[in-house]
Amino acid sequence: MAEYENNCFILHGAVVWSEGLNDLRQLDDGYVICDEGLCAGVYEEIPEAYRDFPVEDHWDGIIIPGLVDLHVHAAQYNNRSLGMDMELIEWLDKLTFPEEARFAQDRDYAVMSYDAFAEDLFIGATTRAVVFATADYLTTLKLMDALEDRGLVTYVGKVNMDRNVPDYYVETTKKSLRHTERWLSRVDGRYENTMPILTPRFTPTCTRELMDGLGELAARYGLPVQSHLNENPREVEWVRELEPDSASYSDTYLRSGLFGGDVPTIMAHCIYNTEEEIALMRDRGVYVAHCPQSNLNIASGIAPVRRFLDEGIHVGLGTDVSGGHSASIFETMKAAIQSSKMYWRYVDSTKKPLTFPEAFYLGTLGGGHFFGRCGTFREGYEFDAVILEDSNLYTMRDLTPAERLERIVYLSDDRNVTGKFVRGEKLY
Amino acid sequence: MAEYENNCFILHGAVVWSEGLNDLRQLDDGYVICDEGLCAGVYEEIPEAYRDFPVEDHWDGIIIPGLVDLHVHAAQYNNRSLGMDMELIEWLDKLTFPEEARFAQDRDYAVMSYDAFAEDLFIGATTRAVVFATADYLTTLKLMDALEDRGLVTYVGKVNMDRNVPDYYVETTKKSLRHTERWLSRVDGRYENTMPILTPRFTPTCTRELMDGLGELAARYGLPVQSHLNENPREVEWVRELEPDSASYSDTYLRSGLFGGDVPTIMAHCIYNTEEEIALMRDRGVYVAHCPQSNLNIASGIAPVRRFLDEGIHVGLGTDVSGGHSASIFETMKAAIQSSKMYWRYVDSTKKPLTFPEAFYLGTLGGGHFFGRCGTFREGYEFDAVILEDSNLYTMRDLTPAERLERIVYLSDDRNVTGKFVRGEKLY
Repeated sequence: MAEYENNCFILHGAVVWSEGLNDLRQLDDGYVICDEGLCAGVYEEIPEAYRDFPVEDHWDGIIIPGLVDLHVHAAQYNNRSLGMDMELIEWLDKLTFPEEARFAQDRDYAVMSYDAFAEDLFIGATTRAVVFATADYLTTLKLMDALEDRGLVTYVGKVNMDRNVPDYYVETTKKSLRHTERWLSRVDGRYENTMPILTPRFTPTCTRELMDGLGELAARYGLPVQSHLNENPREVEWVRELEPDSASYSDTYLRSGLFGGDVPTIMAHCIYNTEEEIALMRDRGVYVAHCPQSNLNIASGIAPVRRFLDEGIHVGLGTDVSGGHSASIFETMKAAIQSSKMYWRYVDSTKKPLTFPEAFYLGTLGGGHFFGRCGTFREGYEFDAVILEDSNLYTMRDLTPAERLERIVYLSDDRNVTGKFVRGEKLY
Repeated sequence: MAEYENNCFILHGAVVWSEGLNDLRQLDDGYVICDEGLCAGVYEEIPEAYRDFPVEDHWDGIIIPGLVDLHVHAAQYNNRSLGMDMELIEWLDKLTFPEEARFAQDRDYAVMSYDAFAEDLFIGATTRAVVFATADYLTTLKLMDALEDRGLVTYVGKVNMDRNVPDYYVETTKKSLRHTERWLSRVDGRYENTMPILTPRFTPTCTRELMDGLGELAARYGLPVQSHLNENPREVEWVRELEPDSASYSDTYLRSGLFGGDVPTIMAHCIYNTEEEIALMRDRGVYVAHCPQSNLNIASGIAPVRRFLDEGIHVGLGTDVSGGHSASIFETMKAAIQSSKMYWRYVDSTKKPLTFPEAFYLGTLGGGHFFGRCGTFREGYEFDAVILEDSNLYTMRDLTPAERLERIVYLSDDRNVTGKFVRGEKLY
């Protein structure tokens, strides 16, 4: 596209973006400027300096920053919206482990499944994601290829697990670490937008030896980490039995250097964190991937998101497919709002429900922060943008751009996503 | 369609239907027979008696009974998925009353809005609905016309309210009753599939005099009744203040002959029912319209559906647009399952969450019972059927028809509804 040379262009239409938790901005008729792949701000009129940039008009469209998914299992994509009548441990044994194991046994199956997952992200409003693959590092590379091909920006992790997993899927400690290093060497220099992230599945499936080995890799390669934390009461109890010497579930990661500080870390769920763990997450800058779809579906509970936000903890949203039934971050925003209302009603009436602007913040800037300068249209931020159309969401009312966006959060599907830009590249 | 003469035909494909709360049936390759508008059962092979009926093949489709919406506000359709950060009373004052009032002030607005609502029901999987209009009886007739034109089977109510409503929308008691009678006389003999239902909005907006007048009309014309009950704690408290002489919120309806017994009655929500009210609903055969989308969105709470079912109370699902953000009963089934899990987790761990088969029962046979023999493919039941296609909901897995249906409940939109039959008439 000649006119977008050097990723310099302007998007013109209604614009909605978040500048902070309670700071939703909108312009009825605005110009979002991309200057060499970085955002140069949103304006009511095109500033003098950008007058020669090509303008792409979206008269009926709404321009928003790309959505960010902080927690999703690509290898569970075939299972989304299936088996929703189980809790975590049964769900892992009956539905999830057999499916993930199949990815190593049948590479064609893996490639086609990963491709479908990548395509779903591509056609939706998500521009960045942090992804679990499976323990099989070879097909993990295929997933990374598929995501790179689509132009999305992602972190992807080969999963590590050396205990409490069925024989057909468990790794030995040695193999788990060796394959992780092989995977890292294969990844090295291979991608522009696809980065590795260390991925101990969760404490019940990782011995101390494996955790320590991963901690060394994190330090040696300067890699980030993702895992699960305090998702389900039975899981929490199990961890207490497995790790009697650890001060807390969080401590089982911390002891091996896998819990924030110099190691950027995402922990999914965090529903049953103790006070000490909340303080630890805050002090060590650990990100919460809040996964309300999943937490509702497999009956895990409701994370105290308001508390996390009040503490200044980083929070983003995760679809958690296939605990989450859908790969849509819009659907996840809706679930975040709805479940926070039940938390307020039934758990703690001092914790105000999440509002729509807050949920939108979490799904853009909140999670985007893990990727650096990302998730809003602030000057100097990487330019990820999505064009939304809502003409099929009929209403007789005249609405502001923010009201139109609220309706899109609750009612839209892939038909409403009509344009997408990542790091200044036009994907469609 | 010549070959469907006398509404005699056969649908061929995968079939899923509910025969009871925990009795989900499926056939990979089945024949559903329609004999003069009534169902003649589901078969693996076409019985001898029906060999000359034309067969409509749906090789990739799933055939299910039509969905039933027991509670929806047509006049709030323009507001769906808007203003979801408010509770009931504020939401009524700021969002709902101004919108409904506009329907009397601007008839064109009303006609176009109602038409959009009817079209949404038409293209979705709902075949039957029980609907609130507004206080304006003339445009209520326009809504009934639009629904009749679409071939759907509905009950529609002109809303009654003579207190605690803004001046621009309130009726006098006399006018409310007089207009109700005029409306009933205009409806008489006008429709084949569209029936009137008396609709006192809810106790806070109805004086005793109005309630008594409606009770007389119910008895005189043999009409059913719909209203709201125990939706929000502040509303419940308000009713206690307004009606100190009534034994309960339910009693405020019962005293005027508007609560079951000989008067078929639907009460929406029923979240904060007392033990006495639960017993009263059971004894008088009052239907619960369970509206979990709405109960989540306007933070009302979670109705004790398991308790109602254990008591043998009739329960169906309501979208409750626009407390509910979507007119889809599939979306409502999902919300019913999800919120029942939070009820189990946080309110009462003895109340098992709703399963997918149970939610599907509620959205078909459960609500269908209000319409008589409706909501399943049992012999002699009125033939409402929907054809679903799921090829766009990609998965590599081989699934049973019931598993495919579970995915449709969680992931589908109007694209997945490709055929529809009501009372044996093919709509598309």
